[in-house]
Amino acid sequence: MPITIDASFAFEVDSPTDALLQFEAVASDGQTILASKTHLNGAETFNRVPAHDAIGERIWLHANRRIEVTYSAEIEISREFANLEKLSALALHQLPGEAVQYLLESRYCAAEKFHDFADREFAGTMGGARVSAIRDWIEQHLTYAPGASGPYTDAGDTFIARQGVCRDYAHVLITLARASGIPARYVACYSPGVSPPDFHAVAEVFLADPEHEEGGKWHLVDGTGMASPRDIVKIGVGRDAADVSFLTSFGPSSFEYSSVRVEETA
Amino acid sequence: MPITIDASFAFEVDSPTDALLQFEAVASDGQTILASKTHLNGAETFNRVPAHDAIGERIWLHANRRIEVTYSAEIEISREFANLEKLSALALHQLPGEAVQYLLESRYCAAEKFHDFADREFAGTMGGARVSAIRDWIEQHLTYAPGASGPYTDAGDTFIARQGVCRDYAHVLITLARASGIPARYVACYSPGVSPPDFHAVAEVFLADPEHEEGGKWHLVDGTGMASPRDIVKIGVGRDAADVSFLTSFGPSSFEYSSVRVEETA
Amino acid sequence: MPITIDASFAFEVDSPTDALLQFEAVASDGQTILASKTHLNGAETFNRVPAHDAIGERIWLHANRRIEVTYSAEIEISREFANLEKLSALALHQLPGEAVQYLLESRYCAAEKFHDFADREFAGTMGGARVSAIRDWIEQHLTYAPGASGPYTDAGDTFIARQGVCRDYAHVLITLARASGIPARYVACYSPGVSPPDFHAVAEVFLADPEHEEGGKWHLVDGTGMASPRDIVKIGVGRDAADVSFLTSFGPSSFEYSSVRVEETA
Amino acid sequence: MPITIDASFAFEVDSPTDALLQFEAVASDGQTILASKTHLNGAETFNRVPAHDAIGERIWLHANRRIEVTYSAEIEISREFANLEKLSALALHQLPGEAVQYLLESRYCAAEKFHDFADREFAGTMGGARVSAIRDWIEQHLTYAPGASGPYTDAGDTFIARQGVCRDYAHVLITLARASGIPARYVACYSPGVSPPDFHAVAEVFLADPEHEEGGKWHLVDGTGMASPRDIVKIGVGRDAADVSFLTSFGPSSFEYSSVRVEETA
Repeated sequence: MPITIDASFAFEVDSPTDALLQFEAVASDGQTILASKTHLNGAETFNRVPAHDAIGERIWLHANRRIEVTYSAEIEISREFANLEKLSALALHQLPGEAVQYLLESRYCAAEKFHDFADREFAGTMGGARVSAIRDWIEQHLTYAPGASGPYTDAGDTFIARQGVCRDYAHVLITLARASGIPARYVACYSPGVSPPDFHAVAEVFLADPEHEEGGKWHLVDGTGMASPRDIVKIGVGRDAADVSFLTSFGPSSFEYSSVRVEETA
Repeated sequence: MPITIDASFAFEVDSPTDALLQFEAVASDGQTILASKTHLNGAETFNRVPAHDAIGERIWLHANRRIEVTYSAEIEISREFANLEKLSALALHQLPGEAVQYLLESRYCAAEKFHDFADREFAGTMGGARVSAIRDWIEQHLTYAPGASGPYTDAGDTFIARQGVCRDYAHVLITLARASGIPARYVACYSPGVSPPDFHAVAEVFLADPEHEEGGKWHLVDGTGMASPRDIVKIGVGRDAADVSFLTSFGPSSFEYSSVRVEETA
Repeated sequence: MPITIDASFAFEVDSPTDALLQFEAVASDGQTILASKTHLNGAETFNRVPAHDAIGERIWLHANRRIEVTYSAEIEISREFANLEKLSALALHQLPGEAVQYLLESRYCAAEKFHDFADREFAGTMGGARVSAIRDWIEQHLTYAPGASGPYTDAGDTFIARQGVCRDYAHVLITLARASGIPARYVACYSPGVSPPDFHAVAEVFLADPEHEEGGKWHLVDGTGMASPRDIVKIGVGRDAADVSFLTSFGPSSFEYSSVRVEETA
Repeated sequence: MPITIDASFAFEVDSPTDALLQFEAVASDGQTILASKTHLNGAETFNRVPAHDAIGERIWLHANRRIEVTYSAEIEISREFANLEKLSALALHQLPGEAVQYLLESRYCAAEKFHDFADREFAGTMGGARVSAIRDWIEQHLTYAPGASGPYTDAGDTFIARQGVCRDYAHVLITLARASGIPARYVACYSPGVSPPDFHAVAEVFLADPEHEEGGKWHLVDGTGMASPRDIVKIGVGRDAADVSFLTSFGPSSFEYSSVRVEETA
């Protein structure tokens, strides 16, 4: 069953400003783009560049007035996914170089200070069972509360305040996974189950690949429980929210609106 | 004139622990390894993996007792370098995808809040002249003070406290460059002018490549003034110090010593 | 010339909640209350208690629905004030016990890390001349920007971001005074020159009393320059904004509005 | 059974420096000073001033060389103490003015963000039973780990890292009590059960006074479990550790040593 996406957003600048956009579905990683249409109304010039870890693309814009972005796409999800509980972790010293950045501290996910908490709270679990225990802990201890957090809220703040939105849920999950020795990254995405409909964020953890002995693979996990690997349309990945945003303006701009509609096509 | 490096360090673990090491000179980026020797005494198993941005290598170790690392190398530096003052910046919307991560916020270099300061303090400068003005500001406003900062000190802390070591100098330089719209990254290195001799850290900024019209290139800058592009031996790069450390232990370990000797060979 | 104040604000609670209010002019410290009227509409019970350092009063409320507070007053200011530039500081070891809390670190004014900056930036000045130099620095380096800061912004954040509102200006002034060995506190107040009209905040520094040899005294200073000691009507004092707020709700509440009008009566 | 205290510490300054000391037992609050002797070797001048909330005294020193402080005392403890579990809390709107500062946020105990955690983790408990539940939670979740925290560690950091020393235990207890609507303060003290012997820190919470209907009273609680109200000799109180330190130097100084011996006299 394909997934249909209709998204748009607009912002305005008073003086010439560069902006970085990232809102299109990735054409790999278990998803196929059946159709897609992107309009950038008002942009003078733009350049497409590979996004973080060369997964998806970012668009550089030069703007000097109102910019409206509209995007529609039809996506087929075909990713394999395994029973998280059963997946084993790779020994740290067997991790490939590309996974290491997702084990280290990042802007919103400073994991080192959480080692003791993770070791104690999730004692007896490893690999996928550890990630599953972390997801359960998040479900039991965090409250979904729009407005309770802001753009500078980090995983530590959310761990204390016990509330936040998808971004914060993903940050806590990533942080506790890293504190458990499991590489974890941030995934900006679309998903039909998100309520109210909006850009969404989940996590990806690097665990064993059930298909290939000794190999590792990224597995999607949604801390909020609203999306599942079967209906997540990836936009991009990063070490945390600092790396994947649908709009980053490098100069004063006023944000006007965003609208997201995602549906599973019958 | 080749540069000779003799470095060693040791640490001990009580129970089996994985550790990530990064201390060898990079075999590219304007430096040639004439000779080198690495010993890892006490390690059971180890794996080499590409380091951040595939520049240099990290070594994964599995240790269950005392580990002593010794490294000696002879390196020839042949990098071109330009007059920083004269280099122009690339327009943001012309930056290649690979440079973008170095423009965004990272663990120790959260640049967004510094926009106003950078705009005002360095008004009238752009590109290389801006970076040069930042370096001058650092020289005038920071005091080199071993012990004044710690492993969790970030650029904001150093900007307030006005003191720190090479790591902190690099973080402030990187942060103010990013706040000026210039991609900047952290470079762990060896250099003969560092006093007292130790692992060193500098910054690299992405500015125009004087050799290729419309292209960009990384240029070395040392906030402390102790090293120059001519005598910097790169070990690795990262978004900040969170990404490049000569030793990261993923479990309890006791650090014993480190010793670094770097000389320009006559 | 008396000052006339008309202030009101309202908030609503769904379930029984206690709240702490502080909005009435202090009846001492160089100001005389010629007339005043306070209405607390909707409060079930309330208790008046002395506020911080026994300057002014706080009102404890028990609320279980919409509360609307209206306050009007006519105040005569008669405080003596000296030429700030000429005031000397007391030696630290001569400070009275009551002043010490205003020298120590507080929630939003952690001064220790600013010692080096203060020593260097304001070298050669002491006492009132130091405070005056701090006020000038603030005038030159901060931009008044409603919306740029929030309830958890501290002096360090503002020092970095270089923008904020009266609360943030007061925090930076207090912090730099403390870092200079001068006790400083936060003063919530009304003043006719505040634009747009609102609750205001300034600082008070403890320096020599020109009238009494060897004695000390609190002197008002407004970092924003909008108010002067002659037209500041004190509501209360504290170590920083954590201690003086017109409304602190100890439970969920929705804030409805606040309105402040302050005029010098002809 | 009286308690005997022998404490000493020394520090050195190169240039004339003022310092604030607080190390003597309070002569009230349920403790009687049977005998005491204070020596300040090396101090040029000193002044005694009342300490925070006029409980105990601080000593202002002017020093220009090595200072050695020795203090010995014999103290009788006679404080009444109640069964914590049975004490009720006062309604917030019945709290006296003096208790309010201990309900508000302070440097190391920013309690607001902990409301949700406290409400959920300790649901169903109030007053003394809530404080007792907080103390039990601390006992189960924190590890006493000298060296794991530093002078700038706050309650949030400790809540995340799950380790610390007496200072950190007290900060977490105070923070969770405030987040529960119970005024709480920091108490620097001596106690014979502290191991290894050192200056100690506990908390005090403001709850009902079992002797006086409708009145409130401060009750001692030790998060570490090493001391009990029967053998705590108070030195002073404050909103947190920022307010009570045996030595605060207002200028460069080098700390030499401290030694504390506390015994219950047979």
